Amino acid sequence: MTGSLTIIGLGPGAAELLTQEARTCLEEASDIIGYGPYVDRVPERAGQRKHRTDNREELGRARHALDLAQSGASVAVVSSGDPGVFAMASAVFEAVEHGPAEWRRLDIRVVPGISAMFATAAAIGAPLGHDFCAISLSDNLKPWELVLARLEAAARADFVIALYNARSNARPDHLGEAFARLRSWRAPETPVIFATAISRPEQRIDIVALRDADPARCDMRTLVMIGSSATRLIARQDGSPWVYTPRFARSPA
Amino acid sequence: MTGSLTIIGLGPGAAELLTQEARTCLEEASDIIGYGPYVDRVPERAGQRKHRTDNREELGRARHALDLAQSGASVAVVSSGDPGVFAMASAVFEAVEHGPAEWRRLDIRVVPGISAMFATAAAIGAPLGHDFCAISLSDNLKPWELVLARLEAAARADFVIALYNARSNARPDHLGEAFARLRSWRAPETPVIFATAISRPEQRIDIVALRDADPARCDMRTLVMIGSSATRLIARQDGSPWVYTPRFARSPA
Repeated sequence: MTGSLTIIGLGPGAAELLTQEARTCLEEASDIIGYGPYVDRVPERAGQRKHRTDNREELGRARHALDLAQSGASVAVVSSGDPGVFAMASAVFEAVEHGPAEWRRLDIRVVPGISAMFATAAAIGAPLGHDFCAISLSDNLKPWELVLARLEAAARADFVIALYNARSNARPDHLGEAFARLRSWRAPETPVIFATAISRPEQRIDIVALRDADPARCDMRTLVMIGSSATRLIARQDGSPWVYTPRFARSPA
Repeated sequence: MTGSLTIIGLGPGAAELLTQEARTCLEEASDIIGYGPYVDRVPERAGQRKHRTDNREELGRARHALDLAQSGASVAVVSSGDPGVFAMASAVFEAVEHGPAEWRRLDIRVVPGISAMFATAAAIGAPLGHDFCAISLSDNLKPWELVLARLEAAARADFVIALYNARSNARPDHLGEAFARLRSWRAPETPVIFATAISRPEQRIDIVALRDADPARCDMRTLVMIGSSATRLIARQDGSPWVYTPRFARSPA
């Protein structure tokens, strides 16, 4: 008997942001595998086994999940946000490509989720209303020079930019260097959004100008978004401003 | 009495891809507004009014929704996919910015949804597993030269590229020109994905090499995705290959 492996996006945190498909797949799984805090978000269910692993062990976790599926289990690998965005789906397919041939015959499915990027955008308006890109600032798996080259390309072409893995203890200076580079291509008043623990009770959103963007506002749960030249604020009497990027655009000067 | 306006992402089509939050907001609305086929996806509910408008009238639809909210209605503006991605959220905030001051005091919320881009990625593997961007090919609201400049920047910086509004009857040649340009920067074997009516019964996904990418595969319901230099196929005995982009990357040569 062969099992199945489903890689499920839990969304950014709030239970209401799960899709019905994700809920159903979680209910049907015999085994839940993932980074501890994500596994903890799945309600306990009698007879269901939970496997919590460390954050850094993506490939080992993927192989463990594939082994379990091969032995007949219905495995759910859980990711925060969308599993295809700097998360577990890519690690699973990497393990499949380099693993035993029988893994290619497994029933493997990906269930999309609400990404941190779109949840952040929704919480403040419509900053991703025009062309945008997503870049991981982590240099664990790519050279820092490539990160900077992509940042420059995105800034010069005037994309709205979402930064994932914007800060870690292992590389505290990278975000500051990224902001310094961005200041040479984008106006000082460009809106920068720091969204921490989005949709969770401890959610915190700061909207500042690029000139004032301080990496210290960022921790490991923070998504950073940098507006394009067209991104605008709408002031409100109550509460923080809305941020949006218009649907139309002009050619850069 | 002042009402509310909620801009809701319905996801790409399948009812199971709605979030619980979107479901709840749809149930609580007094008025549902949107492009006809999206409004039709919302189940009929006694006492709820539905307003179907043409696809091209985004700003007029937004103003109509804001007027209704101002008069006390609980308005749900529905979008396919995520409302913040080339959809209604930006149009609503544009209307607010240029509209009467009282619209700024309205209770306006955006409820994120599963975007066509992430649903497509999930259906075939993990093509967005590394840095990516989203570009609208429409030149209704921006110059075609800007579209090409962004395509070139994204191609040279080796992003995975998702193309929205890839084809319309008004501009049948644009996608062909985009592919021609991409062929000068990306290898001929680069995977290109055509995903039409994703998650709906009539879903169709074609995975071809860039050299063979034919704009005729694309209609108005098609999302087009172009791999980075690292995007790979995993062959399977049954069914179409998986497509994924590894988590690691090297600097371009």
